[in-house]
Amino acid sequence: MAAAPNLVINPTRLWDTLMQTAQYGATAKGGIRRLAASEEDRQVRDWFKNACEALGCTVQIDTCGNMFATRPGRRTDLLPIALGSHLDTQPTGGKFDGVLGVLAALEALRTLIDMGYETNAPVMIVNWTNEEGARFAPAMLGSGAYAGIFTEEAAHAAADREGTTLQSALSTIGYVGPEPVATQRFQALFELHIEQGPILEADNKTIGVVTGVQGISWFEVTVNGQEAHTGATPMHLRRNALLGAARMIEAINTVGLAHVPGVASVGLLENRPNSRNVVPGEVFFTIDLRHPDATILTQMEQACQSALSDIATAMNLDIDQHRAWHSPPVLFSPAMIACVRQGATQAGLPARDITSGAGHDAAYIARIVPATMIFVPCLNGVSHNEAESATPQDCAAGAQVLLNALLGYDGQFG
Amino acid sequence: MAAAPNLVINPTRLWDTLMQTAQYGATAKGGIRRLAASEEDRQVRDWFKNACEALGCTVQIDTCGNMFATRPGRRTDLLPIALGSHLDTQPTGGKFDGVLGVLAALEALRTLIDMGYETNAPVMIVNWTNEEGARFAPAMLGSGAYAGIFTEEAAHAAADREGTTLQSALSTIGYVGPEPVATQRFQALFELHIEQGPILEADNKTIGVVTGVQGISWFEVTVNGQEAHTGATPMHLRRNALLGAARMIEAINTVGLAHVPGVASVGLLENRPNSRNVVPGEVFFTIDLRHPDATILTQMEQACQSALSDIATAMNLDIDQHRAWHSPPVLFSPAMIACVRQGATQAGLPARDITSGAGHDAAYIARIVPATMIFVPCLNGVSHNEAESATPQDCAAGAQVLLNALLGYDGQFG
Repeated sequence: MAAAPNLVINPTRLWDTLMQTAQYGATAKGGIRRLAASEEDRQVRDWFKNACEALGCTVQIDTCGNMFATRPGRRTDLLPIALGSHLDTQPTGGKFDGVLGVLAALEALRTLIDMGYETNAPVMIVNWTNEEGARFAPAMLGSGAYAGIFTEEAAHAAADREGTTLQSALSTIGYVGPEPVATQRFQALFELHIEQGPILEADNKTIGVVTGVQGISWFEVTVNGQEAHTGATPMHLRRNALLGAARMIEAINTVGLAHVPGVASVGLLENRPNSRNVVPGEVFFTIDLRHPDATILTQMEQACQSALSDIATAMNLDIDQHRAWHSPPVLFSPAMIACVRQGATQAGLPARDITSGAGHDAAYIARIVPATMIFVPCLNGVSHNEAESATPQDCAAGAQVLLNALLGYDGQFG
Repeated sequence: MAAAPNLVINPTRLWDTLMQTAQYGATAKGGIRRLAASEEDRQVRDWFKNACEALGCTVQIDTCGNMFATRPGRRTDLLPIALGSHLDTQPTGGKFDGVLGVLAALEALRTLIDMGYETNAPVMIVNWTNEEGARFAPAMLGSGAYAGIFTEEAAHAAADREGTTLQSALSTIGYVGPEPVATQRFQALFELHIEQGPILEADNKTIGVVTGVQGISWFEVTVNGQEAHTGATPMHLRRNALLGAARMIEAINTVGLAHVPGVASVGLLENRPNSRNVVPGEVFFTIDLRHPDATILTQMEQACQSALSDIATAMNLDIDQHRAWHSPPVLFSPAMIACVRQGATQAGLPARDITSGAGHDAAYIARIVPATMIFVPCLNGVSHNEAESATPQDCAAGAQVLLNALLGYDGQFG
């Protein structure tokens, strides 16, 4: 592939934009509270729309509130190449999760315009509605509706805890647009995002070339033994459900270690009756298994189920284990991945391949349109937290690679 | 020691008495709800008082509601030998916990009277107030006040969840007696009780010769790691507090297995933040260590503390462990233990030595007066439950050994 033109983004302008828009929903602890379709969301949406229109873009909004700002390209026979992410946040969210992906796209567009550079395909910036799922469950409603994961009706009907639906909340802030969902077509989506994990930081890499999203399997396990008095019941006469669960947690961890880069975790555990002087009679816990390869994910499931059954049998415990949720792995577009990798090389930035452990808008979009992602580090891997932090240098690096990847991908149409 | 006179209790009368009084507070599931100083407690107390007076006993009641029914002996220079336990129950208690000890004492007394047998020392039956601690915490308030563990004022001030004090509740049912606590003196206390554990049943023994009560040490442990996203955090970059706790639970179990007949248990565990897709950042749990020998109990404490520290260090976890409660071991009177053992032999009943894992009135009394206990099996070791069950044969066996032990002990004064 030919190197893309050497356009350089403006790191200061990007950072200033990040800090300026962080005022919409700013929290005392330096984070953002900008729930989907809230007044704060309206403020940042209005700002974004004005900023795009000031650049000469056409901004269109679909019935789910997804926003599409388009700058024409040299050719009119091509669908746009899209860049974007989301502007909504968690209730006590940080300044970078999602926001960086939209504002870096804006910075890329501003750079093109500054340089008077005309792409072959149109360029589109997307802001997806309700990625976080913090106000309206489930997460990624806007991109999910676009990708046909949810119907428009289902997305509209999603309600917050007060019973307000997404449609009603969007209507209140003026963001139920006229365009039917999924009619704002594009040919490819690049999404820049903070990693929300510790891998890049630990490996001293600035750019994560995201090759896909891990498949996820959730299981629910109930272990039953026999409640008994801790003082009156000798060790050898116990059927201790918590001891059994402890051995199962160790076994699940071993399955994770044996299937790197897969992960295996027990996040939730309830011990019953949970009294200091009662040998636990029942434990409920959940298993979270992830791997980028569907076949290996299945092997992990089988290894866990088998290990847990063996432990239960050896300890005379009863066990019930069943699958609670499954999300298949997503493989991103090889051609787009190559553009990201080349874009990092071109910028002289240390990069490594990485698989996303979390869901993202691009993961849904990848089911219907070629898509990929770029990760930059965040401090200590902390996200969904007001302490979420990314450096100006890393944000600029991500925006530069986003621009490079866009131009590299666009180069095929020249 | 000379064999005691061969008097035989009446198994049918004992069982009928158990079933008759089980009507005071009877539950639909076949248990008893007879909380301390409740109306149901008044009913059984009145019944007990009348039954003792019908046998010619003097019944005295102290200011904490403890009841003492005395039949004179041949000699007037001796303090009574006491038999007894408690008539209060858990909210959904069984028909035998405590009750058997009082009604078997009554059956022993009835047998003496039937046979016209005069003991050397007076015989006393005791019903201790609020042994269960279910309505008024802590447990064993009546025997504890008698033994000087609690002041009378503290016992009186203990309040239930509605704010009613023990003194007020006893006053309502007419059982704040005129006698100052601990002035109803006796020289020894035998307490028959169901085992509330599975040892006798598993060992096919009818009589447990109780040699003492285990010492108890409770610890509280907090393990701190780092909350992290289950999907975005590779196995080797985790500081998983729950995995650490799982290894600690295994280590604590190993300490128990290495110090039989001691026991080591984790009964209560709280996992934080306890979410399916978050690697746990903090776990709180409790440790319950018990051993009849104070020195070995200390060794168990040290073994646990050392093992937990090692695990935390190896896993880069922070740990806080501190002692929450300590109750020293109780050794029962060797002379009285010998009388119980001899009483079982005399009755031809299979017996074994056993240490009580739970607290009992006799454990407090043993601090100031010679005391011991007799255990009989209960089905599956289940107690504090409406399903609590003991056979008529085992109840009768316990009552017979109680009578034999009384007569054996009394024989020294002939």
